[in-house]
Amino acid sequence: MEILKQINAPQDLQKLKLTELQKLAEEIRTFILQTVAETGGHLAPNLGVVELTLALHRVFDTSKDRLVWDVGHQSYVHKILTGRREQFSSLRQYGGLSGFPKREESIHDAFNTGHSSTSIAAALGFALARDRMGEDHHVIAVIGDGSMTGGEAYEALNQAGQFKTNLLVILNDNEMSIAENVGAMSSYLSRLRSDPFYTRRKKDIELLLQKVPAIGHSVAKAAERLKDSLKYLLVPGMIFEELGLTYLGPIDGHNLANLLVMLKKAKSLKGPVLLHVLTQKGRGYAPAEKNPAVFHGVGPFNLKTGELINNNPELPDYTGVFGDTIVDLGASDMRIMAITAAMPEGTGLKKFAKAFPERFFDIGIAEQSAVTMAAAMAAQGLRPVVAIYSSFLQRAYDQISHDVCQQKLPVVFAIDRAGLVGADGATHHGSFDLSYLRHLPGISVLAPKDEDELRHMLYTALKEEHGPTAIRYPRGKGLGVPLSEEYRLLPWGKAEILLEEKGANVLLLAVGSMVHPALKTHDLLLEHGVKSAVVNARFVKPLDEELLLKLAVKYPYLVTMEENVAAGGFGSGVLELLSRNGLNHKNVLLFTLPDEYITHGKPEILLELVGLTPQAMTEQIMQHFALKSKAKIIPRLKIFGKQISGR
Amino acid sequence: MEILKQINAPQDLQKLKLTELQKLAEEIRTFILQTVAETGGHLAPNLGVVELTLALHRVFDTSKDRLVWDVGHQSYVHKILTGRREQFSSLRQYGGLSGFPKREESIHDAFNTGHSSTSIAAALGFALARDRMGEDHHVIAVIGDGSMTGGEAYEALNQAGQFKTNLLVILNDNEMSIAENVGAMSSYLSRLRSDPFYTRRKKDIELLLQKVPAIGHSVAKAAERLKDSLKYLLVPGMIFEELGLTYLGPIDGHNLANLLVMLKKAKSLKGPVLLHVLTQKGRGYAPAEKNPAVFHGVGPFNLKTGELINNNPELPDYTGVFGDTIVDLGASDMRIMAITAAMPEGTGLKKFAKAFPERFFDIGIAEQSAVTMAAAMAAQGLRPVVAIYSSFLQRAYDQISHDVCQQKLPVVFAIDRAGLVGADGATHHGSFDLSYLRHLPGISVLAPKDEDELRHMLYTALKEEHGPTAIRYPRGKGLGVPLSEEYRLLPWGKAEILLEEKGANVLLLAVGSMVHPALKTHDLLLEHGVKSAVVNARFVKPLDEELLLKLAVKYPYLVTMEENVAAGGFGSGVLELLSRNGLNHKNVLLFTLPDEYITHGKPEILLELVGLTPQAMTEQIMQHFALKSKAKIIPRLKIFGKQISGR
Repeated sequence: MEILKQINAPQDLQKLKLTELQKLAEEIRTFILQTVAETGGHLAPNLGVVELTLALHRVFDTSKDRLVWDVGHQSYVHKILTGRREQFSSLRQYGGLSGFPKREESIHDAFNTGHSSTSIAAALGFALARDRMGEDHHVIAVIGDGSMTGGEAYEALNQAGQFKTNLLVILNDNEMSIAENVGAMSSYLSRLRSDPFYTRRKKDIELLLQKVPAIGHSVAKAAERLKDSLKYLLVPGMIFEELGLTYLGPIDGHNLANLLVMLKKAKSLKGPVLLHVLTQKGRGYAPAEKNPAVFHGVGPFNLKTGELINNNPELPDYTGVFGDTIVDLGASDMRIMAITAAMPEGTGLKKFAKAFPERFFDIGIAEQSAVTMAAAMAAQGLRPVVAIYSSFLQRAYDQISHDVCQQKLPVVFAIDRAGLVGADGATHHGSFDLSYLRHLPGISVLAPKDEDELRHMLYTALKEEHGPTAIRYPRGKGLGVPLSEEYRLLPWGKAEILLEEKGANVLLLAVGSMVHPALKTHDLLLEHGVKSAVVNARFVKPLDEELLLKLAVKYPYLVTMEENVAAGGFGSGVLELLSRNGLNHKNVLLFTLPDEYITHGKPEILLELVGLTPQAMTEQIMQHFALKSKAKIIPRLKIFGKQISGR
Repeated sequence: MEILKQINAPQDLQKLKLTELQKLAEEIRTFILQTVAETGGHLAPNLGVVELTLALHRVFDTSKDRLVWDVGHQSYVHKILTGRREQFSSLRQYGGLSGFPKREESIHDAFNTGHSSTSIAAALGFALARDRMGEDHHVIAVIGDGSMTGGEAYEALNQAGQFKTNLLVILNDNEMSIAENVGAMSSYLSRLRSDPFYTRRKKDIELLLQKVPAIGHSVAKAAERLKDSLKYLLVPGMIFEELGLTYLGPIDGHNLANLLVMLKKAKSLKGPVLLHVLTQKGRGYAPAEKNPAVFHGVGPFNLKTGELINNNPELPDYTGVFGDTIVDLGASDMRIMAITAAMPEGTGLKKFAKAFPERFFDIGIAEQSAVTMAAAMAAQGLRPVVAIYSSFLQRAYDQISHDVCQQKLPVVFAIDRAGLVGADGATHHGSFDLSYLRHLPGISVLAPKDEDELRHMLYTALKEEHGPTAIRYPRGKGLGVPLSEEYRLLPWGKAEILLEEKGANVLLLAVGSMVHPALKTHDLLLEHGVKSAVVNARFVKPLDEELLLKLAVKYPYLVTMEENVAAGGFGSGVLELLSRNGLNHKNVLLFTLPDEYITHGKPEILLELVGLTPQAMTEQIMQHFALKSKAKIIPRLKIFGKQISGR
């Protein structure tokens, strides 16, 4: 790390010779590998952009030039070069560096990202602001070919071509999004990469032009005009050229010398420019080169062997249970179709794709059209299941309402990564789905208490027909409960009483991932001599009105628990229910995520931070309702000094 | 209407001769004009597609073929031809025909639309479902060039090119969205339309090929290869071809004979086909041809003169007040930028565009990139105002969270058409914005009680800086209150007590459009001998906690009023506030929109339907709280027999 340790700011790159830059690239690869093997993170994308990032920082000055990383998971090299090398080992850990660009971390991070396909729009906004303010710095967006499948990228490209302002779009083409790329644009880019057609055509035309005898005015003029239009005939990036951008490339994204030349050229051009750079995901690390999808975003792994370190191999994760269940259900119901937005592995649909390729659709990072397509399939009598993470499904909010709910179509949404996701942080937490779904008319919103209940929920949603249905479940490991062999039909809209003791006066009403903590809270309350009942709500919508109203009358203290913000969430729905029924309201205490974007870190740390641990909730219940403990209170460790939610 | 009156179903078209079809086209134009002059509606788009729709129904059978109209406001001719001619005079009225396709109206309406750019995704869904089910009907999407600026259209086009299934996309190119079109794709389509380059090039190459002497093997082979690739060289719709679609056109969309030929050709082709049809918005009605933007969606008008009938010319509308105010504020603050998504007229930004063209951006129907762009502008120190209707802003929900709120950027959202919009119906009501915004961390959500308060809210939001800010206001006329000459800074997060009488025990807590009805409710309650206080909440977020908690303790009966669904809305926020503060809860009654999609009709009818009139609310308050009237109760007319919300 001889050279790397001298790089404390991007300007330190200026003094390096080309060979030193090349050596630095290798040092950075090693540095990233060593760190990410420990912390986990987006490995393959970063190994792919080492040279590109070095070249960008050599040619541009990101203290004033605005550099926007699409999605942002490929910003590690950028972080290392912009004064964050020494904090790099804190990557994705609580209090440490984020895995994504953050304006609050560095002036070199122009714009926060995390979701896909925003970079061109952001860059265009920066460029138009610059023009407005009479400044002259450069604006660069780096976008992967995967992100180009998202509609917002096209919207902005279309505008960039119109506004004609100076703007550089770097198409970081690694032939993958997270999984293998899909869509016609991707095939188009492949043709540009391989290029035989264009090359051949160019030679053909040149040859013909030479051979054309210069007889007759009209022929000569035609030849002349044809030469004029050679650009249109020969330029490989025709689509981009037609949209008003100057297309450069494709160039080898691991050839530093070439990158420097082309970036300087792009820098000097006026108007919007698209530079097509070919990179290899996982470059320089054999296991990642071989399996870039696995090493796209990865947990800790063995650096030597490339084997992933699985801490709880015996526990199945929700994703896997979903994946197995949908294969199971798909086998006996040919109407079931599975749709994902570039996440066949992440959503667990890989097995379904293999078992029923003709019923599996990977739409690319295009959540909007995925949902509309599913609506049409349902309108034609099929049973589509749309599997998208909670925070990414936000992008299809309008389509869920406009195309699915408004037409009461039986589309099932399998929403993975609901609640706190951990290391990916603020952009990836599924903090809002209960709120952005619950207010849509006619939708059912479910959350299973464990991985086995997820199976029965899916079964019930697909066996019966209840209109639009969303099932949200957390990231990661399940509880390890036994998976029942038989599927059960769960009564729609009904909650489940888990514990009801005589003499209990506190009702713990929990949903999804909070049911298990509610049971633990029950036990802790008991240590204080406080008896409580525990209900697994199962449904956030429709609420089990009959049961809840009955219990609300019975119990003087009512507590709700959910891994979602308060506004519009589950507890909020319970309050609405009570108000609607003119009940003389109970003391109601809501445990929810706080009304703020939550940072990255281990889920157990974050849950502690937001006060959603059984211990924190127990104390809060005792305090809020001024209950008297019959036990010696064990003082709770107040870590981080943050306010707890639910107060 | 000789021919038209014989057309009761699409198959009746089959027996007509071409000349009769042409005559029918004129009859339909007259029929539509006569109706829409009375009812209002989307006139210009429908006059533009008369021949296209006739040809579609002649060539396809929409009882099994699936025809998806993008946005759907151009579906009038389709409705008239598919058995709804006699109901056509009920267009957009309560209980009558919708202005958009509705599956519940007819089997010929394959898919409900209303928002832009969904048709290709829906058609693709239908096509894949058809393939899956082993059927062989046709699937057609009709999409305007304006809708092609929306990212979802591109997402689906990209997928259609990949899946290679049979699918016909008709690009209805009228060179406009609602306003004039924007974006590079639009310029590209212009080039295709005018076509001199492509035509010339085709001739040039043919000429050259003829003149090439057949000497030498290599030249002959080159010429051969070149002929092979003629498609790529000569086809004007290169972008679409590159994306995997077969491009046909452009053809004249008012030439029936030609349309029939080309539709039959398109029908016979395999794989995805794009047929580029040139139409003229407002065709056949001089005022609409001259001013298609005005006649895009129009109220009742004088058929002879084309003059719009303005029922309350003395009342300013919210849109106009917003438009004037933003020009005013923009004059003294050069940082203010205005952004719209294809709605310069509808949002009132036309004046700003004229006054400050360098600070005005029409992004096309591309809400997502509009919001991300605004975020970047704000990050660079400017003060962007994004003006988008409530229901259309749904499409940028993720960007509002991910790009604006998460970075705490001071973007101001001017949200017109919040609440019930009337004749456009379910897809256009702004029923959800309080719910989809309130749960986002750090955003402020405001609603003015009248058009004058809108001015002060805008002024305060732009004069000060409060992070992400949304101001929602209703469609249509204001109350006619005097507009103050001076702007006032409103205290952020503070509500306004409008009426507080001694001895009052009911608190009416209203927001936005419901403040005025709250005052009327106060008067009606007084007739029953019930005294009430009235508070204008102004802020849905942050709530005026101090005041509300004080008042909640003071008044035994608490009533909230909002033109938004209950779940996650304003009243829900009040309930959360009370619960959070451990108050022994009051009797709280929420007046909201019901948890269903609301049909079209005059706003006054719809408000009655959902129980949001002062009279209905008064009765409901008396009943819910079991208040004893000291007056003789005037029985309320229960129209429509619908359940009232807020119960």
